[in-house]
Amino acid sequence: MNLEKFIRDVPDFPKQGILFKDITTLLQNGDAFRLAMNRMMKKYRGEEIDKVVGVEARGFILGGIMAYKLGCGFVPARKPGKLPYSATREEYTLEYGTNALEVHEDGILPGEKVLVVDDLLATGGTALAAARLVEKLGGTVVGIEFLVELGFLHGREKLSGYKVNSLIAY
Amino acid sequence: MNLEKFIRDVPDFPKQGILFKDITTLLQNGDAFRLAMNRMMKKYRGEEIDKVVGVEARGFILGGIMAYKLGCGFVPARKPGKLPYSATREEYTLEYGTNALEVHEDGILPGEKVLVVDDLLATGGTALAAARLVEKLGGTVVGIEFLVELGFLHGREKLSGYKVNSLIAY
Repeated sequence: MNLEKFIRDVPDFPKQGILFKDITTLLQNGDAFRLAMNRMMKKYRGEEIDKVVGVEARGFILGGIMAYKLGCGFVPARKPGKLPYSATREEYTLEYGTNALEVHEDGILPGEKVLVVDDLLATGGTALAAARLVEKLGGTVVGIEFLVELGFLHGREKLSGYKVNSLIAY
Repeated sequence: MNLEKFIRDVPDFPKQGILFKDITTLLQNGDAFRLAMNRMMKKYRGEEIDKVVGVEARGFILGGIMAYKLGCGFVPARKPGKLPYSATREEYTLEYGTNALEVHEDGILPGEKVLVVDDLLATGGTALAAARLVEKLGGTVVGIEFLVELGFLHGREKLSGYKVNSLIAY
C-alpha cells in the first residue's frame, strides 16, 4: 500500500505560500493508519525501550500507540504552561521568535532508553528540543521517529547524532 | 491493579483552588498505561466501530490507541484554527466565556459509528461539543469514553442520551 497517497496537500496553510502536508486523511483511514503505525514500530520490535516521548499535539496520536504497542510508558512533551507538575523546559528558535517544550521532571528517569515521536520533520527544531529534554533528565535518545519528513528543509542535519527515521519523505 | 493510585493530585492547577487530576503519572508507567487502555477498550471488542474521535490534546493519546486497536480510523477534534482543511465547528460554554471544537468535514461520513474519547469528564461541555460535531456530519455516537471522571461536576447529566463510561471516577 502506497501510504503517500493518503496524505493531503493543503495550500496556504498555516500561511500564504506554504503547502501543508495534512496527515488527518491518513489517520482517518483505518487500514492506512494501522499500516503506517506498524511500519513505524517494526524496527523497534524486541528492542528494550523504557519511554516514548510524544510531541504535542499530533505526536501524541502516534507516540501513544507506539508506547502502548512497545509496552512502555508514554511521556508528553508539551507547550509551556500545559503540564501541571514540575517540568524542565527547552527553548527553540522558529522562523520568527522562539517557542519552548516542557517535560515533567519525573517523566524520564536517569538511564532510561527513550524514543521521541512526532508527526512531521520540518526544520527539526522541535524534535531537537524534545531530545535535549530527555538528555537533561538523564535519558538516552535511542531514536527519533516521524511519519512525514520534508527533506528540503534539512531537518536531519539539525538532528545529526541521532537515529532519525521517517515513513514518508518529500 | 488499582489504577487510581497512579493518578497524581496537583493542587492549584490550572488555577488557585482546583485540585488537578494528573494522568501523566499513569501514562508514564508502562504496565498501568497498558492495563488502563485494555480496560477502556474491552467493552468494544468485536463491536463494529468506524471512527474514533479524540479530543485535543490528551484525548489524542487515548483515542489514537483505541482506533489502532479497533482497526478503525482516527479523527482529531481540535481547537479552532488548528485543522488545515474545511472543518465544522461547535461552540461550548466554559465557566467564563466560550470555546469551540472543530472536526474536518470529511472526517466522519454519514452513517458511521463513532466513539468519542477524552481523558477527563468534568462538566461535559467539551465532550458534548465533540458528540454534536459527529452528529452534524451524519455519524452516530456509539459511546463516549473517559479515563477519569469528576462525578461531583455532574458531567454525565449534560451527556444524558449517550453511553458514557469512565475508568476512574471521583
